Amino acid sequence: MNLLKKLMSNLTTTPVIEINLNKLIDNYRLLSRVIAPAIPSAVVKDDAYGVGAVEVSKALYERAGCRNFWVAHALEAEKIIEVCPEAKIYVLQGIGHDSLPLFKKYKFIPVISSLEMWHFYKKHKLDGVNPVIYVETGLNRLGFREDDLKKLSSKDLKSFSLVMSHLACADEKDHFMNEHQLENFKRLKEKYFKGLPASLSASDGAFLGPDFCFDMVRLGAAMYGINTAPYRENQMKNIITLKAPVLQIASLEKGEFVGYSATYRANTNRKIAIVSIGYGDGVPRSLSNIGKVFFKVSSKWVEARILGRVSMDNIICDVTDVKDLQVGEFGYFIMDDYTLDDIARDAGTIGYEIISRLGKNKRFIKKYILSAR
Amino acid sequence: MNLLKKLMSNLTTTPVIEINLNKLIDNYRLLSRVIAPAIPSAVVKDDAYGVGAVEVSKALYERAGCRNFWVAHALEAEKIIEVCPEAKIYVLQGIGHDSLPLFKKYKFIPVISSLEMWHFYKKHKLDGVNPVIYVETGLNRLGFREDDLKKLSSKDLKSFSLVMSHLACADEKDHFMNEHQLENFKRLKEKYFKGLPASLSASDGAFLGPDFCFDMVRLGAAMYGINTAPYRENQMKNIITLKAPVLQIASLEKGEFVGYSATYRANTNRKIAIVSIGYGDGVPRSLSNIGKVFFKVSSKWVEARILGRVSMDNIICDVTDVKDLQVGEFGYFIMDDYTLDDIARDAGTIGYEIISRLGKNKRFIKKYILSAR
Repeated sequence: MNLLKKLMSNLTTTPVIEINLNKLIDNYRLLSRVIAPAIPSAVVKDDAYGVGAVEVSKALYERAGCRNFWVAHALEAEKIIEVCPEAKIYVLQGIGHDSLPLFKKYKFIPVISSLEMWHFYKKHKLDGVNPVIYVETGLNRLGFREDDLKKLSSKDLKSFSLVMSHLACADEKDHFMNEHQLENFKRLKEKYFKGLPASLSASDGAFLGPDFCFDMVRLGAAMYGINTAPYRENQMKNIITLKAPVLQIASLEKGEFVGYSATYRANTNRKIAIVSIGYGDGVPRSLSNIGKVFFKVSSKWVEARILGRVSMDNIICDVTDVKDLQVGEFGYFIMDDYTLDDIARDAGTIGYEIISRLGKNKRFIKKYILSAR
Repeated sequence: MNLLKKLMSNLTTTPVIEINLNKLIDNYRLLSRVIAPAIPSAVVKDDAYGVGAVEVSKALYERAGCRNFWVAHALEAEKIIEVCPEAKIYVLQGIGHDSLPLFKKYKFIPVISSLEMWHFYKKHKLDGVNPVIYVETGLNRLGFREDDLKKLSSKDLKSFSLVMSHLACADEKDHFMNEHQLENFKRLKEKYFKGLPASLSASDGAFLGPDFCFDMVRLGAAMYGINTAPYRENQMKNIITLKAPVLQIASLEKGEFVGYSATYRANTNRKIAIVSIGYGDGVPRSLSNIGKVFFKVSSKWVEARILGRVSMDNIICDVTDVKDLQVGEFGYFIMDDYTLDDIARDAGTIGYEIISRLGKNKRFIKKYILSAR
């Protein structure tokens, strides 16, 4: 019973996510050098890709001098302006009835992407704010098509502070769309917005070279550690560590099944661990029977394969080869040697979707790492 | 320009989720009749599967007399006990160092699933609380294996208020695992817990017949509208409506591409709509080029296929056949005719994962529907 008592002292049940803001700032600075002399700006939409818009914005504002931030919805900007009082906050989804009071109160900068929105904006003209105009160049998502640009008066065209567009395939260096969109953007800028500051690229475009950087680059995914230039080794630092405690270790006999719908069957005797995390915490269910959990043994990582279906609160993995594993030890789901990109590959998606799901959960112990100044 | 002005008046940018608590209560009541004389209890873990644990628990407590609630983690229970002061709240992941203060303060009832946890519990014995014991019967997830049950003294065995287990394949009526687990559970109950109240089934098990219901059933997925008996028509009411406004409507010419990585190409001229919602809001990226958006035209639903990749904040869909669509109208992603189960099927997952992702987002306008009494 002595060993048992020792084990008990480690017993915990809550998953833990660590967000390393030091490394996020390092990524921001490295990207800023890559894009210079273009100005860096930070994309903190979707609660800073799920990791916490207030914490990320504050760190970039206070430590890295960032003064330009992008969100999708005005309601996301309200908490950011509190911690970044002198910042410009651009709102990508633009302005509408539901967000008008926020624009009036805080002077957020709407991104105007259609004729309808332009007329709405003019009607409710916000003093002292020059909006951004979004022109469509090939993604076929939001943005003015040229037919509608032609309907703007020359006075209208002079109302904007920035012209922007967005690349579709910037993570593939030689994709024909990159040049196609660049040429479209240059042509529209020359024809309708001569002399106006411009922004074409997000952090994937940053690596396509100086032609793509114009006056401002919108740094998002790469800043959060995702490799937005997957045709070469990642230059960014991983900022996320996700781990959860082992609640129980058990034997699985040959012939036994694991998890919902009995999708895993043991063909030999195995040792399994039940880890206290699931898709309810943002670990995708598509990792069922595919994903990996990592355990540190004598300072080396040992892989444990996920067995059966990922359930809402628990994941079962094969720890037959994990020596001396004890209840209360942590299994790692994201760390420097198994990054957002790696878990995304195993889950059949992209790092952006993984990170965006994870951070929003309320059941984590959430830790931010940021050095004292 | 008159039409344009009319359109402008509808312009909004924020997605909307409606959670119908009246229908949730109807589902709870119907399920309660199905399982009678077993006692119903409500599973509100993972923030009530993402839709709001406080709102759901309060409604069930005040309107439907529910007095037994299940969460996964103790930290989830803290807000529930405030609105359900007389309720029993069971904590499925059990007790550990990190949650001990909450158990001491609020008298939550831990579910003990291992010998380690039992000894931890005994050491920190909580006055006036009789825990639940979780026995493993075939899922091979959490729960006492019989080898460890044998190590409990007869006094230990009398400390519990309920013995529980959990079914692996209860959504398949004739799956051999159902009988196998039932027999295991009955045998363990008879041998170690004679006379103790018991709970085997969640809402999928409820439909397997009275043998599976014992003294208490844990109602979760079905209460939230998911069909947990997919071998027949769903008897539950859909409780979720998810919709987002059209920000822009545009022409797509033959040969043009849509979205990231240019995965959709138009082979004929199309009309597209850009809808203000994305995977950042919980709409799975796996719906890229597969999913559907619905528009109401003359009180009938018209399907619009999702084109290209789902992005973080926007979804593009083919509205060529949606007559007279205007900016500001809503596209529907979940509603009574396209339920959680339907969107899950298209996304390659289960309704549980969809609902669990959706509700946690902060960018929705969230509306609860609950009649005045």
